[in-house]
Amino acid sequence: MLTKPQVAIVMGSQSDWPTMRLAAETLEALEVEYEARIVSAHRTPERMVEFATNARAEGFKVIIAGAGGAAHLPGMIAAMTPLPVFGVPVKSKALNGQDSLLSIVQMPGGIPVGTLAIGEPGAINAALIAAAVLALSDDNLADRLDAYRARQTESVPLFPSDTE
Amino acid sequence: MLTKPQVAIVMGSQSDWPTMRLAAETLEALEVEYEARIVSAHRTPERMVEFATNARAEGFKVIIAGAGGAAHLPGMIAAMTPLPVFGVPVKSKALNGQDSLLSIVQMPGGIPVGTLAIGEPGAINAALIAAAVLALSDDNLADRLDAYRARQTESVPLFPSDTE
Amino acid sequence: MLTKPQVAIVMGSQSDWPTMRLAAETLEALEVEYEARIVSAHRTPERMVEFATNARAEGFKVIIAGAGGAAHLPGMIAAMTPLPVFGVPVKSKALNGQDSLLSIVQMPGGIPVGTLAIGEPGAINAALIAAAVLALSDDNLADRLDAYRARQTESVPLFPSDTE
Amino acid sequence: MLTKPQVAIVMGSQSDWPTMRLAAETLEALEVEYEARIVSAHRTPERMVEFATNARAEGFKVIIAGAGGAAHLPGMIAAMTPLPVFGVPVKSKALNGQDSLLSIVQMPGGIPVGTLAIGEPGAINAALIAAAVLALSDDNLADRLDAYRARQTESVPLFPSDTE
Amino acid sequence: MLTKPQVAIVMGSQSDWPTMRLAAETLEALEVEYEARIVSAHRTPERMVEFATNARAEGFKVIIAGAGGAAHLPGMIAAMTPLPVFGVPVKSKALNGQDSLLSIVQMPGGIPVGTLAIGEPGAINAALIAAAVLALSDDNLADRLDAYRARQTESVPLFPSDTE
Amino acid sequence: MLTKPQVAIVMGSQSDWPTMRLAAETLEALEVEYEARIVSAHRTPERMVEFATNARAEGFKVIIAGAGGAAHLPGMIAAMTPLPVFGVPVKSKALNGQDSLLSIVQMPGGIPVGTLAIGEPGAINAALIAAAVLALSDDNLADRLDAYRARQTESVPLFPSDTE
Amino acid sequence: MLTKPQVAIVMGSQSDWPTMRLAAETLEALEVEYEARIVSAHRTPERMVEFATNARAEGFKVIIAGAGGAAHLPGMIAAMTPLPVFGVPVKSKALNGQDSLLSIVQMPGGIPVGTLAIGEPGAINAALIAAAVLALSDDNLADRLDAYRARQTESVPLFPSDTE
Amino acid sequence: MLTKPQVAIVMGSQSDWPTMRLAAETLEALEVEYEARIVSAHRTPERMVEFATNARAEGFKVIIAGAGGAAHLPGMIAAMTPLPVFGVPVKSKALNGQDSLLSIVQMPGGIPVGTLAIGEPGAINAALIAAAVLALSDDNLADRLDAYRARQTESVPLFPSDTE
Repeated sequence: MLTKPQVAIVMGSQSDWPTMRLAAETLEALEVEYEARIVSAHRTPERMVEFATNARAEGFKVIIAGAGGAAHLPGMIAAMTPLPVFGVPVKSKALNGQDSLLSIVQMPGGIPVGTLAIGEPGAINAALIAAAVLALSDDNLADRLDAYRARQTESVPLFPSDTE
Repeated sequence: MLTKPQVAIVMGSQSDWPTMRLAAETLEALEVEYEARIVSAHRTPERMVEFATNARAEGFKVIIAGAGGAAHLPGMIAAMTPLPVFGVPVKSKALNGQDSLLSIVQMPGGIPVGTLAIGEPGAINAALIAAAVLALSDDNLADRLDAYRARQTESVPLFPSDTE
Repeated sequence: MLTKPQVAIVMGSQSDWPTMRLAAETLEALEVEYEARIVSAHRTPERMVEFATNARAEGFKVIIAGAGGAAHLPGMIAAMTPLPVFGVPVKSKALNGQDSLLSIVQMPGGIPVGTLAIGEPGAINAALIAAAVLALSDDNLADRLDAYRARQTESVPLFPSDTE
Repeated sequence: MLTKPQVAIVMGSQSDWPTMRLAAETLEALEVEYEARIVSAHRTPERMVEFATNARAEGFKVIIAGAGGAAHLPGMIAAMTPLPVFGVPVKSKALNGQDSLLSIVQMPGGIPVGTLAIGEPGAINAALIAAAVLALSDDNLADRLDAYRARQTESVPLFPSDTE
Repeated sequence: MLTKPQVAIVMGSQSDWPTMRLAAETLEALEVEYEARIVSAHRTPERMVEFATNARAEGFKVIIAGAGGAAHLPGMIAAMTPLPVFGVPVKSKALNGQDSLLSIVQMPGGIPVGTLAIGEPGAINAALIAAAVLALSDDNLADRLDAYRARQTESVPLFPSDTE
Repeated sequence: MLTKPQVAIVMGSQSDWPTMRLAAETLEALEVEYEARIVSAHRTPERMVEFATNARAEGFKVIIAGAGGAAHLPGMIAAMTPLPVFGVPVKSKALNGQDSLLSIVQMPGGIPVGTLAIGEPGAINAALIAAAVLALSDDNLADRLDAYRARQTESVPLFPSDTE
Repeated sequence: MLTKPQVAIVMGSQSDWPTMRLAAETLEALEVEYEARIVSAHRTPERMVEFATNARAEGFKVIIAGAGGAAHLPGMIAAMTPLPVFGVPVKSKALNGQDSLLSIVQMPGGIPVGTLAIGEPGAINAALIAAAVLALSDDNLADRLDAYRARQTESVPLFPSDTE
Repeated sequence: MLTKPQVAIVMGSQSDWPTMRLAAETLEALEVEYEARIVSAHRTPERMVEFATNARAEGFKVIIAGAGGAAHLPGMIAAMTPLPVFGVPVKSKALNGQDSLLSIVQMPGGIPVGTLAIGEPGAINAALIAAAVLALSDDNLADRLDAYRARQTESVPLFPSDTE
């Protein structure tokens, strides 16, 4: 449907997809091209190295990486590409994503990962901040993003509803 | 020294400056123009609203916002600008920045803040990810960033030293 | 049903209503007038600014604000009104309201939010402390509050029951 | 110096005074009368019962209670008075006030304690919210509180300073 | 069924009974007399004061107190009786008993509460340590406790079973 | 100085003594005989087994056990003696005793450890609850404990002091 | 099915088996002999001492120990055997295995337990690291382990699937 | 001094050396050959890949990896070598090593890291478990390890000392 993606969405496992799918859907709503791949830092380290070191040359502009538990994927990709990397801490089974969050956000000075919220809100927001980055040099996307935000504001009801 | 800034560094209080100064210094090392301001979400909400709503028109491309404790500044600015916002959780007195981190990173779906690590590494990394964003449409900056990363890699010694 | 409200109950989203409704019901039980509105700090910042800056002039005496996750609403309202603000940390999906609690309670010196417990007990108690504040200059309400507390005390059984 | 206090500041031990003194000083800055007492829930339970049950009759309008660790004082006083009670979690030695915070804020539905931040910011803010409550029926105090807030806003510098 | 109880089991609310019932059942298994009462520190403070100050005179030797959230009951009872008090942190809704645990165990020097595990294991163990205390001056109970422990040891299978 | 001890104070290492010494001093103040030993669950497991299995026969009535980090000593002793065991979580270097607390208090149903607060308050209180247990069959000790508590109550000043 | 085991899998209770079974199944997949036993540190301390002190003489090379809550089993076994011990923190009811993790991993210097993740991933990984240890002197096992890892790598799909 | 190392000690930065040095010193005390290198997952990812993929061929048998914060080094090395990897969570500045611990221990099923305690005890214990692994096929080392453990047991004093 979309061609020549500027955004890569990578995740550590198929089980991250129900969360990361929201990043994909949000990008689609904004008409931003993306490609979603499974890249496991631990089970497919070669694939990860190849992806990360080639990402800029492949034409990607922004990378969204989601992972859970000892979530090394976002930080390791950030270590091997100059592109901005946004990390989504996927909710983990035992610790509810607290491990994922700390593993992604607490990067040492020198290698940044822009980290979003745990779980689905984080996936949506990774897409939105990726779009905001791309919109800096794409006025049409900036307009679409403004419209998205305006619709979002308008959708907030004035009063709570007992029947909803 | 630097003119026409693309990056705004804002912080909630003068006490955040020893941390946020590292963002400024890192941008200087990369020759990225910035402006640093104190904007308190709680003590100067009008100033914050004015800053955030005008930031794009003023010419800023990226906003770095640092705050501690109930750290509302990054998220509130993100609520009022379409620009990408990067948040730095400043280490707080009682809870070591755990409150700052959660207050910044756990944004609801719809309003993203790309969050960096607690404290000084986060301030450095906010500058680096801001630069990576700007470098997407600035090849010279991309080169400087590549050089920065290369120097960083080269500076890692092969063996630990007892005398350092 | 009730007219000329002294208490405003605001919340960040419709999803907070099942929790915040208990504040409303508790105020109704005490015959305290209130108005419930949805005011999102992040999705409707203008509405929030307008609400908060006008709250005193509108005649409100006390504000109850509930929010979850990076819960900025109570603190931001407190930043823009001299009225006493009571915050209810709504239970969040990933972190069970620990993020909500810290985002609300850890306000910097200068801007207070009187914070209640996470979730439903907090919503009930926000109503009760709002009523206690109003009762300082309303003897009838003070009597109703005393009666409420007396009934509450009487309702505690002496012995645990296996059949309850 | 001040007569006929409307605010009681109570604390569990002399060791809480360096924190709670900031509540006292803030009330003094606002010209709000107060009385500070040591009332230990655990070591002087009779004194606590007597204080709490008589507080309204003694003429107090608002109670500020600070305690650390298993901080039962604010909640127990709230259980025995209809007056609004504000709790200050004093920073504890081993857990930095996390125990104090949870012991104060997590009150069951029925008995509210409006809880402020851990430590000194919480003590300042307990005074400010107590003043905001009293200002509802004291226009002069409302003016002083507005002035306090205005001075606070004015005191925030525009730019961070390296020499401060 | 049992007469002249040496052990009092008190709890803050009927909702604690499904947990505290295990303390009762364990005492029954050991043929230790007990009495179970609901005593809410917050909703029935007078009842609590009366219970605690009279507990020794009533003939109780050991008190087991269970509560959840801002769990003040065990510590407040310990403040008003010289009898040994054992506290059971009942699992709370939002924080899984972490608040209950800290509110009970972090007592200041001077007023001890012997705290057991969160939830059902804690209720069982409160009964067992109460029995161990009584067994110091009751050889028959000591024998029954030894037998209980021996049966417990014997009941541990040598190998895990897939069919259990 | 003291003969025929009823209380054993054991600790995992010499480094626990600055904390556990407060248990010893508190017992001395109450004229309760004790013996203090170093028994490491991990470094001297045989000594621990021998101590725990013989403790009742040696004449001990109550055991106070302090340990830090993965604090197994109190629970393992409780597994091998029918005597009541009180555990003191010693403050650990990295996690401030949170690991010690959970390792001691979260015992499975069947083997109780009455756990006190982290660090020095816990050591004092372990002595006090041990004394309360012994006082059940020692009226003189009960009197001394009552006097200790009375002195403690009297020592609480009525007002905070700036000069203390 | 398998004879002369090199690996012992021990666990504190039957309730740990649904987790620890994954260690067993992983060893079976690698054709590594094992024996699974229930050994409770708290309910069967003698069995534990006998097991641990004899484990080397019985021919075991590696011990996998799983336990939950105040999880003392791995550390206590490590205290009584020179064999490498790997610990699996079983997810606990109230605290989701945070207590199990800290009780196992925070061993003092001198007695190591190689700790794996909370719950099922930890059980699988305990088997894998045990196999990696045995593979150091068993080339056939090393080959099987390499093949296991290769299959694992190959099993990671390139793209996420909506139909899985 | 030592030749042909069987153990590699790697760490993310020079700043980890004061901790990891204890692993080195412990191996020296056991006469186990080792090599210490700085390998940063984030700043020198190529060096890390090269190290990890060649470690077995270079003759290493066991790898000890220490890192702090978003500590990815141990897990990433484990992803690229079949050798057993032991991880040491180095104490971090803001979160005291809680981030390091979770980033290392919470590995997904398939790639194990045997994790030791936070900080210096963990470094010592990484050396000890590495030695225990090597001792499985080195009787002399097994004897030295037994002697080390025996000395450790003997060094525990029987009684605490006020003068130490």
